[in-house]
Amino acid sequence: MKATVMHGPGDVRIENVPDATMMEPTDALVVVTRAAICGSDLWPYRGYGEFGETGNRMGHEFIGIVEAVGAEVRTLKPGDLVAAPFAISDGTCVFCREGLHTSCVHGAWWGGTTQDGGQGEAVRVPYADGTLFPLPVGRDDALMPSLLTLTDVMATGHHAAVTARVGPGKIAAVVGDGAVGLCAVIAAKRLGAEQIILMGRQPDRLALGRAFGATDVVTARGDEAVEQVRQLTGGHGAHAVLECVGSGLSMRTALNVARPGGAIGRVGVPHEVKIPASNPTFFKNLTISGGPAPARAYFDVLLPDVLEGRIEPGRVFDFVGPLDSVPDGYRAMDAREAIKVMIAFNQ
Amino acid sequence: MKATVMHGPGDVRIENVPDATMMEPTDALVVVTRAAICGSDLWPYRGYGEFGETGNRMGHEFIGIVEAVGAEVRTLKPGDLVAAPFAISDGTCVFCREGLHTSCVHGAWWGGTTQDGGQGEAVRVPYADGTLFPLPVGRDDALMPSLLTLTDVMATGHHAAVTARVGPGKIAAVVGDGAVGLCAVIAAKRLGAEQIILMGRQPDRLALGRAFGATDVVTARGDEAVEQVRQLTGGHGAHAVLECVGSGLSMRTALNVARPGGAIGRVGVPHEVKIPASNPTFFKNLTISGGPAPARAYFDVLLPDVLEGRIEPGRVFDFVGPLDSVPDGYRAMDAREAIKVMIAFNQ
Repeated sequence: MKATVMHGPGDVRIENVPDATMMEPTDALVVVTRAAICGSDLWPYRGYGEFGETGNRMGHEFIGIVEAVGAEVRTLKPGDLVAAPFAISDGTCVFCREGLHTSCVHGAWWGGTTQDGGQGEAVRVPYADGTLFPLPVGRDDALMPSLLTLTDVMATGHHAAVTARVGPGKIAAVVGDGAVGLCAVIAAKRLGAEQIILMGRQPDRLALGRAFGATDVVTARGDEAVEQVRQLTGGHGAHAVLECVGSGLSMRTALNVARPGGAIGRVGVPHEVKIPASNPTFFKNLTISGGPAPARAYFDVLLPDVLEGRIEPGRVFDFVGPLDSVPDGYRAMDAREAIKVMIAFNQ
Repeated sequence: MKATVMHGPGDVRIENVPDATMMEPTDALVVVTRAAICGSDLWPYRGYGEFGETGNRMGHEFIGIVEAVGAEVRTLKPGDLVAAPFAISDGTCVFCREGLHTSCVHGAWWGGTTQDGGQGEAVRVPYADGTLFPLPVGRDDALMPSLLTLTDVMATGHHAAVTARVGPGKIAAVVGDGAVGLCAVIAAKRLGAEQIILMGRQPDRLALGRAFGATDVVTARGDEAVEQVRQLTGGHGAHAVLECVGSGLSMRTALNVARPGGAIGRVGVPHEVKIPASNPTFFKNLTISGGPAPARAYFDVLLPDVLEGRIEPGRVFDFVGPLDSVPDGYRAMDAREAIKVMIAFNQ
C-alpha cells in the first residue's frame, strides 16, 4: 500500500510500504478516506525529531471505513465509518474511564517506526473499541472536514479552552493563528467567553478567526503584543490564555498576558519552552494546565455541535488534495501558505 | 518601640526603632499581642535575600489591638482585636473583590525597609479596612494560636489544597512537614481527601501530621519517595499534590508523585525551582497552580471551623516566648528544633 514516510527534516515521500494487517484480536483494519496534516507534523519537518532507519510513518488524524475486525472487537463491524483520534487508547483503563485517554495505560501514538500512520491508504488500529469513534454519517458527507477536525485540532482547541478555564463572561486570549488557535477561538466562544483576543500575524487567518468569534486581534509580537492585550483588557490581562503554538516566545507571551489568578491552557507541543518558577507564575497565582487533548472523550461533547452546524471547524482546511499531494501539503503548511491540509483518498 | 530587625543571614536582633505612626487617613495603628515566625522568614536568614542599610523589619503574621484609626477607616475602632494576614490589601480593587487579595493593585508586604513588621510592638497598618480582619474573641482567648495561623500558615495550607483541587474521594500528597505542610494536611482532610500522604522526615512532625489526618507518611526522599508514593496509590500517583516547601527537590518530587491529569498546588516560595515544560508536566496533563495565599479571603471560610474546634492548626506552635526570644526562635526553626514560633507580647 502507499503511505507517507518522513526520512528527515523537509524530506516527506509517498512510498510503497507493507500492507496494514491485523495482529491482535482487539485490532481493526481501517481503509482511510480522509486524513490531515497536523501542525505538530511540522516539528520533525523542521528538524525537531528522531528518524528511524527507514523513516517515520506519518499522520495521526484520519477517518475511514472498517475493513475487518479482530475476534475481541465488540462495538464495530466491517463497513462502519469511524474517526480515529490522535492517540490510541484501550477505552477501559482508569484514565480512559476518567476521560484522559491520552494517558491510557495501553496508549500509543500513531506512525513513527511502530504503528501505521493516518497519511496512508490503510491503518491497523490497536484497541479498536477504545480508539475509534463511529460516525453517524456517510463517507462523503458534506460535514467531513469538520468531523475530521474532531480527531485533533478542534479537540485540541477545546482542550486549551477547558484547561484555561474559559467560561461565561471571561476574557480569553488565544496565542497562535494556526488551525489549533482558530479552533481554540471556536471553543472559547462556545464556552461563553465575553471577549476573545486572537494573537497572530496573517490577515487571512485572522479574518477566519474573526468569523469564528474573535472580538479583537493583536498582530504585534513580544512585549508590544503583551502591552496591546493589557490595553484591550482594562490593564489587567486575560482570565484564560489558550497557548496554541508551543514555542518559547508563545509561552512567554501567554504567561505575560494572563491576569493575576488567570489560567493558561497549553496545547502546543513544547519546544524550547521555559516556564519560570517565580515571576509571573507563582507571584501572580497563575495556573498552568493543558497537554495532549483527550480527543476521544471530546467527541461526545463536540459532535452534536458539528452535526447541527453550530460550529464549523472544517473551515480551517484550505488545501485539499490526494495522497500524492502530501509532500506539497507539508511544504505549503511549512511556508504558511496553507492553514491546514486535508487528504481525500479515492479508494 | 522594640522590633525585630534582620541585618543579614543569621543575624536577627531586637532593636529600638522609630515608633509606628499613622501616615494616611486609611491607616490604623495596631499594638501587637501575638505574632509568629514564618518558614519564609528563614529564606533570608539562610542567605536568600537583600538587606537594607539599617536591616529589614520582620514579621507578617500578627494579631493585635487597634490603638487608633485614620479619618477614612470605616469598619474598625480603637479597642478592636484584629488579625493581619500576610499581605496588605485595599479590599476594594478588582482582585480583592475576586478574592485574590495577594494581587491587590495597592498591595504591599509587611516589613522590609518600607513597612513595619509584625514581630514588633506596634504596626502601622495601611488600608486598615481592607487589610485587617476583626476577631470575635478576647485578646487572650485559648484559641489564639489557631487564630494566629489564619494570618498565614493555615490559609496557605488551605490554598495549597484548593489549588491542588482536593475534593471528596481524592488522593492527596503533601510535600513537606513544616507548619504549612501540616496545615495542608488539615486542609486536605477538611476538603474530603480520602487518602493523605505526608512526605517529611521528622518523627514528631509526622506524628502531628497523623493527628491532623494524614493516612500515610513517606520519609524517603527523591526517587525512592516517588516510588513509595506510587506503591501507596495503586501505581498511579496522587490526584492532588500540595507543595509546601519551595525547593528544587520538593518541586521535582511534587511533579513526579502527581498522577496523569493531577494538579500541584504550590505555596512554598520558590527558590532554585525548575518547572520542566514537557515531561512530566505537558505529556501527563498536569496542572500547576498556587502562589501567595489570599489569607484575607480565607478568614470567612476557615474561621468558623477554628471557633467551633473542628480544626486545631494552632498545635503547630511548639515554641512560645516573648519578643526578646525571637532570635532564639529563628535559630530553633532554622535547626528544625521548633516547628513554628509564637511570640506573646506583654503590653
